[in-house]
Amino acid sequence: MLTMGVDIGSTACKCIIMEDGQEIKARAVVPLGTGTQGSRTVFEAALTKAGKTREEIERILVTGYGRFTFEAADSQKSEITCHATGVHYLLPTARTVVDIGGQDVKALRLSEDGLLDNFVMNDKCAAGTGRFLDVMAGVLDVKTEELGELSSQARSEVSISNTCTVFAESEVISQLSNNVPLPDLVAGIHASVAKRVAALVFRNGLVKDVAMSGGVALNSGVVRALSRELKSEILVHEDCQLAGAIGAAILAYREAKRVS
Amino acid sequence: MLTMGVDIGSTACKCIIMEDGQEIKARAVVPLGTGTQGSRTVFEAALTKAGKTREEIERILVTGYGRFTFEAADSQKSEITCHATGVHYLLPTARTVVDIGGQDVKALRLSEDGLLDNFVMNDKCAAGTGRFLDVMAGVLDVKTEELGELSSQARSEVSISNTCTVFAESEVISQLSNNVPLPDLVAGIHASVAKRVAALVFRNGLVKDVAMSGGVALNSGVVRALSRELKSEILVHEDCQLAGAIGAAILAYREAKRVS
Ligand code: SF4
Repeated sequence: MLTMGVDIGSTACKCIIMEDGQEIKARAVVPLGTGTQGSRTVFEAALTKAGKTREEIERILVTGYGRFTFEAADSQKSEITCHATGVHYLLPTARTVVDIGGQDVKALRLSEDGLLDNFVMNDKCAAGTGRFLDVMAGVLDVKTEELGELSSQARSEVSISNTCTVFAESEVISQLSNNVPLPDLVAGIHASVAKRVAALVFRNGLVKDVAMSGGVALNSGVVRALSRELKSEILVHEDCQLAGAIGAAILAYREAKRVS
Repeated sequence: MLTMGVDIGSTACKCIIMEDGQEIKARAVVPLGTGTQGSRTVFEAALTKAGKTREEIERILVTGYGRFTFEAADSQKSEITCHATGVHYLLPTARTVVDIGGQDVKALRLSEDGLLDNFVMNDKCAAGTGRFLDVMAGVLDVKTEELGELSSQARSEVSISNTCTVFAESEVISQLSNNVPLPDLVAGIHASVAKRVAALVFRNGLVKDVAMSGGVALNSGVVRALSRELKSEILVHEDCQLAGAIGAAILAYREAKRVS
């Protein structure tokens, strides 16, 4: 049985087709968020990749910020539930999941069976989110995707004293004019994100293994800095950005079995 | 007896010369903050205006963020103490003082004699501070000083749902592209600042009369919006931006009397 999970986020849409809630048959990511053609595009891209039609998909479950805008769905579920399910599929030993998205940060605690025990979220403050990194990349005139590689070249780390994105931005601008090496500055920026996120994680309680998901998990500099702050290894799966969509496809399968 | 108060802030330096801690003899403001020539310039400007030399000033007290950088001072005192003293001089009935500066917000509660009873401060988050207004003025491509006048032309008020400066900035940009009238948008920006500041004021307890000081008190739009949020008239003195320096000059006089 084929099911589909769609994750309509604020900055990207992701789609997964799975067989029997176990094997990934197709994955698609479109860097367009809710309110755009992204959801339609990603939906069709996944069908094409799997070589299937809509009719061959037993059930579609949609999640994410923009989940109520997607009409082809059979059902919706919260991001948190889908995310927990998806991460447990990718990394079965994960008990703490740190998810840094484009505009928010979540810390999830999972049971051994991958059920959600507890979670905390920050979606009110840009500090510690992907947006903080975007703002800093803008000031440094580099791409957000280049930050991880840049920080790996750091010889030391510039300390950034302000947590607030706006105040930290001024600080980074003044450090730039002091000719501080770019990699050291980027390392400081990653440390700032890591400190902020670690506070959230500790608030929710840390149980190992720790996994990271969300787009920012692809930034190796943030992963390194957070690992240091949490005093814990951090598992990252190459499909981490797809965890929500994977979870949605798995939950669609479970629903289909219950329904049928 | 002449005394001088100098207030070295983050974005401006102010200087006051008073006679017997009672009458203002000279005032000077320089729009340069700590770490610049601002303190020296404002010091000399005030002496020139009063037609006096350094030797004729009995005592100099310096306050503000940059107070430890000013060498000509006889003593230093915290901004909060000087501010309370200065506002009580300008507006003797004020019991609650809201001070919105370039990078922070303070709420002070004064006793009937103008002594500081209690205060709360936010200097960690740009939301609700002058910096929020600066960022928004930048997005709207107007001067911060023009915001008050602009909002007075508003016909309705655009509601801004994000408190965070960074997220609110994106919201304002998207409203702009919807061709929302500028004055309505500015009114919404002022309402956002007022809500944030009002929360701080209520946390500290509100006792009437309420006065406003700091550079942002010159923005009539913020004063109006805050008055509505606090359900209270707000007293603003034309010398409100100088309250810290005035308090410093008064406290310098009291110290001189004690010393002599
Ligand atoms: S601290 Fe800065 S980034 Fe966080 S909510 Fe305030 S303005 Fe936004």
